[in-house]
Amino acid sequence: MNFDILKTVVKRNETSKIVLLVMDGLGGLPEPAAGSKTSLEAARTPNLDALAARSLCGLHQPVAPGITPGSGPAHLGLFGYDPLTYQVGRGVLSALGIDFDLQPGDVAARGNFATVDGTGRVKDRRAGRILTEKGAELCALLREQVTLSGAQFFIQPVKEYRFLFVLRGDGLHAKINETDPLEVGERPLKAKAQSPAAEETAALVRSFVEQTAAVLADREPANMVLLRGFSQLPRWPSMQEVFGLKAVAIAMYPMYRGVAKLVGMEALPASQSVGEEFERLAQCWAEYDFFFVHIKRTDSAGEDGDFDRKVAVIEEVDTFVPRILELKPDVLVVTGDHSTPARMRSHSWHPVPVLLWSDVCRPDRVTQFGERACLARGLGVRFPVSDLMPLALAHAGRLEKFGA
Amino acid sequence: MNFDILKTVVKRNETSKIVLLVMDGLGGLPEPAAGSKTSLEAARTPNLDALAARSLCGLHQPVAPGITPGSGPAHLGLFGYDPLTYQVGRGVLSALGIDFDLQPGDVAARGNFATVDGTGRVKDRRAGRILTEKGAELCALLREQVTLSGAQFFIQPVKEYRFLFVLRGDGLHAKINETDPLEVGERPLKAKAQSPAAEETAALVRSFVEQTAAVLADREPANMVLLRGFSQLPRWPSMQEVFGLKAVAIAMYPMYRGVAKLVGMEALPASQSVGEEFERLAQCWAEYDFFFVHIKRTDSAGEDGDFDRKVAVIEEVDTFVPRILELKPDVLVVTGDHSTPARMRSHSWHPVPVLLWSDVCRPDRVTQFGERACLARGLGVRFPVSDLMPLALAHAGRLEKFGA
Repeated sequence: MNFDILKTVVKRNETSKIVLLVMDGLGGLPEPAAGSKTSLEAARTPNLDALAARSLCGLHQPVAPGITPGSGPAHLGLFGYDPLTYQVGRGVLSALGIDFDLQPGDVAARGNFATVDGTGRVKDRRAGRILTEKGAELCALLREQVTLSGAQFFIQPVKEYRFLFVLRGDGLHAKINETDPLEVGERPLKAKAQSPAAEETAALVRSFVEQTAAVLADREPANMVLLRGFSQLPRWPSMQEVFGLKAVAIAMYPMYRGVAKLVGMEALPASQSVGEEFERLAQCWAEYDFFFVHIKRTDSAGEDGDFDRKVAVIEEVDTFVPRILELKPDVLVVTGDHSTPARMRSHSWHPVPVLLWSDVCRPDRVTQFGERACLARGLGVRFPVSDLMPLALAHAGRLEKFGA
Repeated sequence: MNFDILKTVVKRNETSKIVLLVMDGLGGLPEPAAGSKTSLEAARTPNLDALAARSLCGLHQPVAPGITPGSGPAHLGLFGYDPLTYQVGRGVLSALGIDFDLQPGDVAARGNFATVDGTGRVKDRRAGRILTEKGAELCALLREQVTLSGAQFFIQPVKEYRFLFVLRGDGLHAKINETDPLEVGERPLKAKAQSPAAEETAALVRSFVEQTAAVLADREPANMVLLRGFSQLPRWPSMQEVFGLKAVAIAMYPMYRGVAKLVGMEALPASQSVGEEFERLAQCWAEYDFFFVHIKRTDSAGEDGDFDRKVAVIEEVDTFVPRILELKPDVLVVTGDHSTPARMRSHSWHPVPVLLWSDVCRPDRVTQFGERACLARGLGVRFPVSDLMPLALAHAGRLEKFGA
């Protein structure tokens, strides 16, 4: 969806309210042991089914055909931002994922602790997958022993061998090549500026890497660092600017609050349970126009290959649907950001069921919320996910007529 | 599908295998005499029907809504190359169609023998559709009597009044206007360079046309030649580069091997029967990742208006489906490049049935492989054909996650 046309039709004084309920990794594959049903098809979801019967349903295609999205692109699409146009660097995504307070102008990179041999060639890009505690200890060591002049730096553990590296200062620039050679047997690459404006930043990175190599020299397997995805916070139009919506994110995990903040949403503090998320929703109802509620555990269950747990999470979420409807939203969209079939134990490219309810929607013939049921859809099959936001806005009475 | 995103996600070391089985002109129209069924619907296809029940089905739209594709664009779309972006000149297609060994740098044009009157105006653009033997005789005559300095030339009969004209030499350029005025009563146009780089080539073409006119002067009805579609072999990224696939084409006709070679496929020598094509497939199974198997006779039957023969060809192909599955492909796509309804005796714009089977596909509700059955599809109706390749790659486990 091109934002230009929206500018001419978005109403700026509407007070209608839209809820986007995202069950992460909602879509699945049929499980022979479950009567060839998917988790969503197998789940008892009386509330979602009743809602589907009054809704417009379909299957959205996140990103592009065959493309398995990461959490960043998948959510940007749901927020109406074409993920191929609005791309975020790995460094920024790492920062969002650990709730690091990245500032405009900061340069962030994703780091790996790695192993190099006596000749300086990479033996293991992941340093034998050292434990998270070990990674944290090494970050603390580098924080103490490395000094940079001209900029502040931050080094934060992420998980196992992964960490976040951030430079903060004036005039920093992210156009720097990755130092990770991506292949074992190669030497780490020197950080070089890919534009004149990035020369100073590249020098800072080189200084960091050299000092780090010295500090870690006798710390095999973690005797080197590799840096990827140098990036800065993007300057994108906010949901307020594009859609005229004051938007809020309610999510347990930092990554989702972080991606929401990239498009100008406010993010409530982390919730501890699904129930608490819906309490938060009720509490802040008067203050916002758009409510992004994120349920993480559907995806976690899928990634663990736990079909039944995914069913259970979906059934739990189903019980909260009446609570949402009691708030009297003008539009309620229920969907996932991508599929995470338990059988694959990973994100996948498969289209994702979606329902859009509103008092002015034209219901289709779908009477159950499920992958195959949604084939009898009014929204489409494999339709671009970024179509959802303008459709939600329209159903919320937030778009003017285009042309006379 | 934009190739840029694929670059970031295509796995280069995967060994999974994809088969694309194309029945040329597969789609049809209902025939009243056959109980209002299409050839595909009327054909007894137990193997394809069983496969459809375990597959993702749909109808693809070759090229664009309402557009009837030629063989070139139709196949490029199937290979994942948007046929509106990747266009091939008529001259090059003519060369591919007769297995002419066109070299990079050669300039090829499609030629017509034509009739001009005493004042030099075109009376018949096709020289009364002279017989193929006559066309061949005239080509031989021109080969003998025309001499060009500065470049080699080739003139090869194609069919009836049509021939292929090729210039070979250094620094040739194809930006030359067509000499065919396209209207009876007009004079043939002078070949002129449309860019300075093409001046020399245009001069060669003019010299060829002038000498030819002299040689043919008393040979009415074939007393002139008209040239169209000056073009050179395109330099496109190969399927290896774009998709990471070592690809092979198995086809009876030169045109299909030729188009396959344009995207970097290897082409096996011409097969003589459908059975031989599937033998070849089994023989070369270990050597490639992607197998394009082309069945020509569905299209020929459609073009001859022979509904029953088209049914018979489809039924023959159906018997080979188990042979393909025995090879254990990771993905099997069965479709056509376009429709060729027997009732129309020609290619048409109608969407084409397609099934995509894989162990990780999410089957839809289609239980029969046919035009109307595929409406209950998971792939979509009138979806862009170039979506197929990325979907096949995804199902073959050949694409990384996009973004974090």
